[in-house]
Amino acid sequence: MQQFILNLSCPDRAGIVAAVSQVLARADMNIAESHQFGDSTQQAAGLFFMRIALDVPPKIDIAAFQRLFAPIAKQYDMAWQVYDAAMRPRVLVMVSKFDHCLQDLIYRTRLGSLKMDIAGVISNHTLAQKTAEQAGLAFHHWAGTKPDTEDKLAALMARENVELVILARYMQILSPTFTDALAGRIINIHHSFLPSFKGADPYSRAYERGVKMIGATAHFVTPDLDEGPIITQGVEDARHDMRVSDLIELGRDVERRTLAHATRLYLQRRILLNGKKTVIFE
Amino acid sequence: MQQFILNLSCPDRAGIVAAVSQVLARADMNIAESHQFGDSTQQAAGLFFMRIALDVPPKIDIAAFQRLFAPIAKQYDMAWQVYDAAMRPRVLVMVSKFDHCLQDLIYRTRLGSLKMDIAGVISNHTLAQKTAEQAGLAFHHWAGTKPDTEDKLAALMARENVELVILARYMQILSPTFTDALAGRIINIHHSFLPSFKGADPYSRAYERGVKMIGATAHFVTPDLDEGPIITQGVEDARHDMRVSDLIELGRDVERRTLAHATRLYLQRRILLNGKKTVIFE
Amino acid sequence: MQQFILNLSCPDRAGIVAAVSQVLARADMNIAESHQFGDSTQQAAGLFFMRIALDVPPKIDIAAFQRLFAPIAKQYDMAWQVYDAAMRPRVLVMVSKFDHCLQDLIYRTRLGSLKMDIAGVISNHTLAQKTAEQAGLAFHHWAGTKPDTEDKLAALMARENVELVILARYMQILSPTFTDALAGRIINIHHSFLPSFKGADPYSRAYERGVKMIGATAHFVTPDLDEGPIITQGVEDARHDMRVSDLIELGRDVERRTLAHATRLYLQRRILLNGKKTVIFE
Amino acid sequence: MQQFILNLSCPDRAGIVAAVSQVLARADMNIAESHQFGDSTQQAAGLFFMRIALDVPPKIDIAAFQRLFAPIAKQYDMAWQVYDAAMRPRVLVMVSKFDHCLQDLIYRTRLGSLKMDIAGVISNHTLAQKTAEQAGLAFHHWAGTKPDTEDKLAALMARENVELVILARYMQILSPTFTDALAGRIINIHHSFLPSFKGADPYSRAYERGVKMIGATAHFVTPDLDEGPIITQGVEDARHDMRVSDLIELGRDVERRTLAHATRLYLQRRILLNGKKTVIFE
Repeated sequence: MQQFILNLSCPDRAGIVAAVSQVLARADMNIAESHQFGDSTQQAAGLFFMRIALDVPPKIDIAAFQRLFAPIAKQYDMAWQVYDAAMRPRVLVMVSKFDHCLQDLIYRTRLGSLKMDIAGVISNHTLAQKTAEQAGLAFHHWAGTKPDTEDKLAALMARENVELVILARYMQILSPTFTDALAGRIINIHHSFLPSFKGADPYSRAYERGVKMIGATAHFVTPDLDEGPIITQGVEDARHDMRVSDLIELGRDVERRTLAHATRLYLQRRILLNGKKTVIFE
Repeated sequence: MQQFILNLSCPDRAGIVAAVSQVLARADMNIAESHQFGDSTQQAAGLFFMRIALDVPPKIDIAAFQRLFAPIAKQYDMAWQVYDAAMRPRVLVMVSKFDHCLQDLIYRTRLGSLKMDIAGVISNHTLAQKTAEQAGLAFHHWAGTKPDTEDKLAALMARENVELVILARYMQILSPTFTDALAGRIINIHHSFLPSFKGADPYSRAYERGVKMIGATAHFVTPDLDEGPIITQGVEDARHDMRVSDLIELGRDVERRTLAHATRLYLQRRILLNGKKTVIFE
Repeated sequence: MQQFILNLSCPDRAGIVAAVSQVLARADMNIAESHQFGDSTQQAAGLFFMRIALDVPPKIDIAAFQRLFAPIAKQYDMAWQVYDAAMRPRVLVMVSKFDHCLQDLIYRTRLGSLKMDIAGVISNHTLAQKTAEQAGLAFHHWAGTKPDTEDKLAALMARENVELVILARYMQILSPTFTDALAGRIINIHHSFLPSFKGADPYSRAYERGVKMIGATAHFVTPDLDEGPIITQGVEDARHDMRVSDLIELGRDVERRTLAHATRLYLQRRILLNGKKTVIFE
Repeated sequence: MQQFILNLSCPDRAGIVAAVSQVLARADMNIAESHQFGDSTQQAAGLFFMRIALDVPPKIDIAAFQRLFAPIAKQYDMAWQVYDAAMRPRVLVMVSKFDHCLQDLIYRTRLGSLKMDIAGVISNHTLAQKTAEQAGLAFHHWAGTKPDTEDKLAALMARENVELVILARYMQILSPTFTDALAGRIINIHHSFLPSFKGADPYSRAYERGVKMIGATAHFVTPDLDEGPIITQGVEDARHDMRVSDLIELGRDVERRTLAHATRLYLQRRILLNGKKTVIFE
């Protein structure tokens, strides 16, 4: 039997769960897993979020589900999406000078731990070419202007039916127009420290201060650079005998692990946007 | 506004969530948090489990809720319980020769991290007397036969309105009759190893083998000694320079932490029994 | 047999370990545990750090050890300290409006997990008075000017033979003169975030951003507020359903745990100062 | 400058560190890192273990070091080994029906996280052939008798200058003669549970009991099956909604991670054998 994932958010009010579950029950769909969250901490009216994994009879496909669910979605003013859980999203990976995150994504995809298809690798450098091609992936070396790159990217996404872009240590800033158009569909990873060390060469400054932890933050990309909704964060312990190069290596470990975790959450449709934050249904 | 916790299990079939949520919505109760699990892995008919945290209008008390919910519970053949989330369960703690778990339970209760009232401390030794009395807790030294202890325990539970018994390193075995009567209401903690070392003096044998981890298991007590439904487990890393006494000390740390975690899960009504297993809604 | 801890640092050069171990061996002292670290990452000459746990024959006391070791220490230009491992350092705890860290320090001291004697509790508020007195500790309510408080503190430290001051959520800033005089003897705890949120009300800003981790940093106090050498750091996972108050509560958990860890490292003489950093021999 | 690793063990007595460090200092070798451990917990005479990372002048090669160190090693009755830290050990990986551990070892080797050269993959099945060959590794399908396999293995190890054999889910038992001859040079990984579930199909039994943790143990292979000296252990949390197949998948994750950790410890010469246990200098 097929499984669908239904994600929705709407203004909170009494009876949403009852109404939704009734619609589903009447169509012989069984709720296999369900998460909900009412963000009553917001000042004004609260927002309600829900993720349901559904066992769906063969006669109902995605289009049929959408027709069936549209009336109640309209009635409750829902933002919503339904996904076939078996469908593997198509993904593009963008990298610059370091390919440790790319290698990890390829490895986990091959292992079956990330259920996605990598439709290609894009870089403004050539370093990742060998890694991509050895894995049988198309490699695109784009070294033009930003508008040029974004035009090509949009075209490639359309042609290859790509849903998600992963910036796996891609050091170019995308334009606000582009990131706005793809809100919730571009994931970035960047290093993070407690306390933070902004500006150039943060690892050297973290080293000078003798930090005992190195972190990474995976987030959706918005026009505010590195300020988009946080998906997940990770840390690793640092020791006094680590040099700057060791801290950078440790940072790569935690970036890899954190980016893979964020990607898995996305692929399993466990991330819902809540303004500048995310709701994560794990 | 008051909050109730509703826990239920029943044979799995389509429409349960719809039916339950409708009953609640009609009575102006709002679902603040909801977890569900369908144990379709069982051979025959599956079992469905659900935990709902409800915002309940002041006019509805626990008795009113029970009247209101009884018909649907009967219709779906549910085992169910409803709790006032603000109610602090009353608890008895039983100990023998070691009071490290007792001390920890007292500390966390005082800190507000465990929302319970300790109605008394019972021991077949006197070691814990000072710890109990310094904390202002009644201490009962019962050194009689097992039937005698169990009679006194039952009487004390009735008199003090006690819901939960915590065996915090209590080294006496309770009778099957007693543990059957209190199924799901007695929590025990015992050490655990990978691989396991059964029999006397497991720490010495773990030491001889050079284990790198020491664990603990918190479980409900059943007539099968140390074989009851597991609630939670914990581990700590061991090192080569630890002596047997260090391993024992490490074992106490992990026992303390694991027992506190199991107790918190119980107090928050997050544990549902599923035959020889538990469902934990965290 | 008694155990001493010897901590030393000096300019790095060949033969230090050989020279030190020979002196010890000749006096029938056996090296039970030894850590060393050469900070060759510094620009100019490197610094060498060493911590040795020694089994010492009864005839040698601390004063005798100091006479015995002074020549080689002078020869290698060492900064060094020797401690009797059985000696329990005397400690003062300073708090302001929150006593969660104080409660934890008292609990772990009683449990034997922190081997220190709390010589008193000092506060510019009265909130912690009950906690201190219930634990049988002297409580000092000092609400005067900063110079007044520091004078009293210095006098109390001298009178009570206090070695370490723990700022367990003490919200007053100590003067540079005072912190310089007690370099390496005052530990502070403060919250930390990835990325950091500076200024007032960081928990609200972390909430708005939807952080997935809350951290804490324990460090030695220097005239640069919150910029002293980091001893240890901790983090806890945050979830989307946590309100600001939950994040604050989570922050207290990680502060407690991190401060206790830093205190234990200090008591075991495992922290050596290395300029603006620490060397931690665990 | 080159770095050597010196590992030694000998009967414990005063002055070992002094004697060793003097020999090294006289030959202009500098101690970059040093760990020691005195196993005074043994009944009779204690054993002393030491690992030293040495900065060695170019004029001294491994053979020269061995000549230089032999006299003191003899004097103190040491078992000892010296390694060039830059030398990448050559390794054979043996697998049966599952290649998740093999894939992980290949990935980490390519990433540079495991500094070894895989000289070939051996299997009594053909499943891993594609994985091996895609990675450019020689694949050997040996389906003969045990003596036949062991003869071929010994010959291949000699021919390829192989130091370490990794049983990465290899389900055949090697003969006592073979494992005795390669003591400390064969690493195995097997699943572990708290409490343990021996016999066939442990995952089903763990599932029935509702365990909350799944573990793995990496150990050296000895004639006692699965009873050799433990190198490292790992665990992952299990949840109530995991089926047997999920537990098996989780078990693979922790096996992969634990085996990689054990392999890294070996490659860095951080494991010393201590009878039925190991000393791990991390």
